[in-house]
Amino acid sequence: MSDFTIAIHGGAGTILRSDMTTDLERAYTDALEQALMTGYSLLEKGISSVDAVKAAVMSLEDCILFNAGRGSVFAKDGSQEMDASIMDGETLMAGAVSAVRNIKNPVELAYTVMTEGEHVMLNGQGAYDFALSQGIKTEKDDYFFSQFRYDQWKQLQGTDKAVLDHNVAIRDKKFGTVGAVALDKKGNIAAATSTGGMTNKKWGRVGDSPIIGAGTYANNKTCAISCTGHGEPFIRAVTAYDVSCLMEYKGLSLQEAMHIVVHDKLLRIDGEGGMIGADAKGNTAMVFNSEGMYRGMKCSDGRHEVSIYK
Amino acid sequence: MSDFTIAIHGGAGTILRSDMTTDLERAYTDALEQALMTGYSLLEKGISSVDAVKAAVMSLEDCILFNAGRGSVFAKDGSQEMDASIMDGETLMAGAVSAVRNIKNPVELAYTVMTEGEHVMLNGQGAYDFALSQGIKTEKDDYFFSQFRYDQWKQLQGTDKAVLDHNVAIRDKKFGTVGAVALDKKGNIAAATSTGGMTNKKWGRVGDSPIIGAGTYANNKTCAISCTGHGEPFIRAVTAYDVSCLMEYKGLSLQEAMHIVVHDKLLRIDGEGGMIGADAKGNTAMVFNSEGMYRGMKCSDGRHEVSIYK
Repeated sequence: MSDFTIAIHGGAGTILRSDMTTDLERAYTDALEQALMTGYSLLEKGISSVDAVKAAVMSLEDCILFNAGRGSVFAKDGSQEMDASIMDGETLMAGAVSAVRNIKNPVELAYTVMTEGEHVMLNGQGAYDFALSQGIKTEKDDYFFSQFRYDQWKQLQGTDKAVLDHNVAIRDKKFGTVGAVALDKKGNIAAATSTGGMTNKKWGRVGDSPIIGAGTYANNKTCAISCTGHGEPFIRAVTAYDVSCLMEYKGLSLQEAMHIVVHDKLLRIDGEGGMIGADAKGNTAMVFNSEGMYRGMKCSDGRHEVSIYK
Repeated sequence: MSDFTIAIHGGAGTILRSDMTTDLERAYTDALEQALMTGYSLLEKGISSVDAVKAAVMSLEDCILFNAGRGSVFAKDGSQEMDASIMDGETLMAGAVSAVRNIKNPVELAYTVMTEGEHVMLNGQGAYDFALSQGIKTEKDDYFFSQFRYDQWKQLQGTDKAVLDHNVAIRDKKFGTVGAVALDKKGNIAAATSTGGMTNKKWGRVGDSPIIGAGTYANNKTCAISCTGHGEPFIRAVTAYDVSCLMEYKGLSLQEAMHIVVHDKLLRIDGEGGMIGADAKGNTAMVFNSEGMYRGMKCSDGRHEVSIYK
């Protein structure tokens, strides 16, 4: 049991050791470690869980390795539309944005929707206009995925086939959502999620990440959850809130509830992916049914882990 | 207990007898009756609950009195953006659309997303493009709210102040969502919801209606729910799925679970509105915490009700 704790994920899916180089694996673990420490150091200073999950997710959005913010995948029409959400377990306030373009940190916009707006969920051009009215930072298209940065990064990592394969894998990885959950010193929990969605997504598809209850949920009474996976089954299963209900109505522990949802309920409807969770008692869990999940946790009791594979 | 049953709503809010004329009240109850019979007659023929709720909601969308499809309210920028969703309790398949324009029947598009697409939720222009590819019927802007139809309707109803007030009320009524839930002869349940959103809504706001788990949910094991109300609290409370969880995990009846969610959980976060529900055993319920809710139910055991006020 910890006084404060944070967990993060950088997406789940078919992540195989055989597709990795040592350098690339280090790049991933370094980025996860940095996001973890960004959030943890805020919690250590007594800053709120909401601010900690926002900061951790912004760190992952800024890293081109993950499919959120910078590095978001391309939709069928060549655009990069991003979704994000955040929820405060103390107040049950929430903010979400879907199909936003050119927002440097979609989770920051979701946070601002929660704190400054009268609505929970804003979409598309309207969300962008709201962002401008609030002074949220925007970036041009090439920031999110420029050929220059891509080539530069390839050169840095070397040009062997495995790296090329992995580059391709980054663009094709379906479940590259990022997220964070945290418990702060005051006993409040929060969750945040951000994604660039599915590669080649069509028809303005919205996944589970901006859906409160599906991709993100937080309630001091139960848990804070951020999901990553094949969004459609996660929406149909109301995944994040289901963990909360199993805890509240059936008295299950965080770990038990997450296990049932990920390994039973989601699998029954072909839902591949995983989730991270925290509760107000200091428990933290990371559960997935896919080959791997980029993930990390750091707790004030000394537990500290960054992992990729099973 | 009925072999088959349908319930519908045409929105909830501050609906006062003092704002009504006899003619107007009749127009509302006739429209509700027509939608109810449209769905009921399908169920009577052995057609599925999914088809019945779709047909009932289309009937309400086609009526200019309700804020969905034709008659949708105007957003701040003068546009009419509509949301809809549908869920099949047998398969847990679902479809939803948000921020769509010029779609004659948004619930028909949500149904087609569920049955023909690979995604659950489509948004904006992408959803519109998908609609065209599927031959979904579109209409020009003036179909949804033309001055001609408006004036014609005013003339038909007379020109006294009460009617004018009511005309204004139609445009200002915040919670004018429509929806339906049904149980068919095979024991399958389904739910559907459709809305034009909030008058003067800004920033591409998305309410609870297209959110599976919030505005709409259906699962043969528990219940089919369609909500109407102030969307933001309904999203934060994951309202429709909460009813399902209270039934599945705590063993509550449909009526008990709906009562807790509407009169306790929603009120605690200032959530005004209501919901209709059906379960696979033939129970039907209509619960609201607002002044009124346009509503109706018709069951094979003979129960038949159309009401507006408390």
